Amino acid sequence: MGVVTPPKTPKQDRSRATRLRLLEAAVACLAEHGWAGSTVSVVAERAGVSRGAAQHHFPTREDLFTAAVEYVAEERSAALRALPVQARAEVVGALVGLYTGPLFRAALQLWVAASNEEQLRPRVTELEARVGRETHRIAVELLGADEERPGVRETVQGLLDMARGLGLANLLTDDAARRRRVVTQWAALLDGVLD
Amino acid sequence: MGVVTPPKTPKQDRSRATRLRLLEAAVACLAEHGWAGSTVSVVAERAGVSRGAAQHHFPTREDLFTAAVEYVAEERSAALRALPVQARAEVVGALVGLYTGPLFRAALQLWVAASNEEQLRPRVTELEARVGRETHRIAVELLGADEERPGVRETVQGLLDMARGLGLANLLTDDAARRRRVVTQWAALLDGVLD
Repeated sequence: MGVVTPPKTPKQDRSRATRLRLLEAAVACLAEHGWAGSTVSVVAERAGVSRGAAQHHFPTREDLFTAAVEYVAEERSAALRALPVQARAEVVGALVGLYTGPLFRAALQLWVAASNEEQLRPRVTELEARVGRETHRIAVELLGADEERPGVRETVQGLLDMARGLGLANLLTDDAARRRRVVTQWAALLDGVLD
Repeated sequence: MGVVTPPKTPKQDRSRATRLRLLEAAVACLAEHGWAGSTVSVVAERAGVSRGAAQHHFPTREDLFTAAVEYVAEERSAALRALPVQARAEVVGALVGLYTGPLFRAALQLWVAASNEEQLRPRVTELEARVGRETHRIAVELLGADEERPGVRETVQGLLDMARGLGLANLLTDDAARRRRVVTQWAALLDGVLD
């Protein structure tokens, strides 16, 4: 923002790299082993970081895993925002793609754990609301949707709910072929509303 | 089916009642405490049944919880099939309602656990496919959808995916007001495709 920031020291770079390794290991761990199998120790080992260093970055288990899901969600949002202008079916496909990878699996594990654990719940609820608003904003922009028109906002919301449901349908089996057909059809439906 | 069945003995009635109490306690337990907190002992205690009696009905933990989710899914399907003919927005609301109660919470806990546990996964995958097909059949019938027409099948599938996504959005917060607006809008969109 016009302010001159001092150049980073090698120590700051190392610290940042450690933090990123922990965040990425945390998401992978959550996606593969679920909340019950995801502890700070397991993640530190996977990231090749000492438990002490991990706790320096993230004092509690809740800190580590909510930060991890938030970090990956921001990465995905940035990638989506950088997409070139595309046909609507491709945009719908890209939005649905947000909910079918390891990030969605990790986020789902966190949501479900938060529904049963009081100390996790408020943080995950707040995180989910923030990520949800951002995803909605990106969807409106990529789809070229005019939310001033009646019904458009709810149409986009329903589309993102569908994307989340498609992610859930992909949890236990590879649902890609059916998903493609649903995406094609719903993209055509959207054209009728948004144009 | 025209075959005379012998009248049930009081012992059979008692056994059946015990089984039902176990199934209902299992779903409630799964919805409230998740897979990690749901054991046969916890369910037996909640149902007021001895652990031995519980194991007589359901030899393994997997048997008990998959049977419980299946039982409640069948109850919900039967209730849905018995609905009088309704306007499309009401049908969409009823279908979405399948995914917002304790059954959905319980099923979600089971799906997510199955994604991390090999001994649970094949049974839950098979159960989910069976329940999914049945829900699709009921939706087609209640919506008066003609699947011979191009796009209709995928429209109904996408609607059920949306319903599942709305269920997920309701996991941590009460999403009823937003959900009502999305349902109203998508029911109107459906009218354009199905009529």
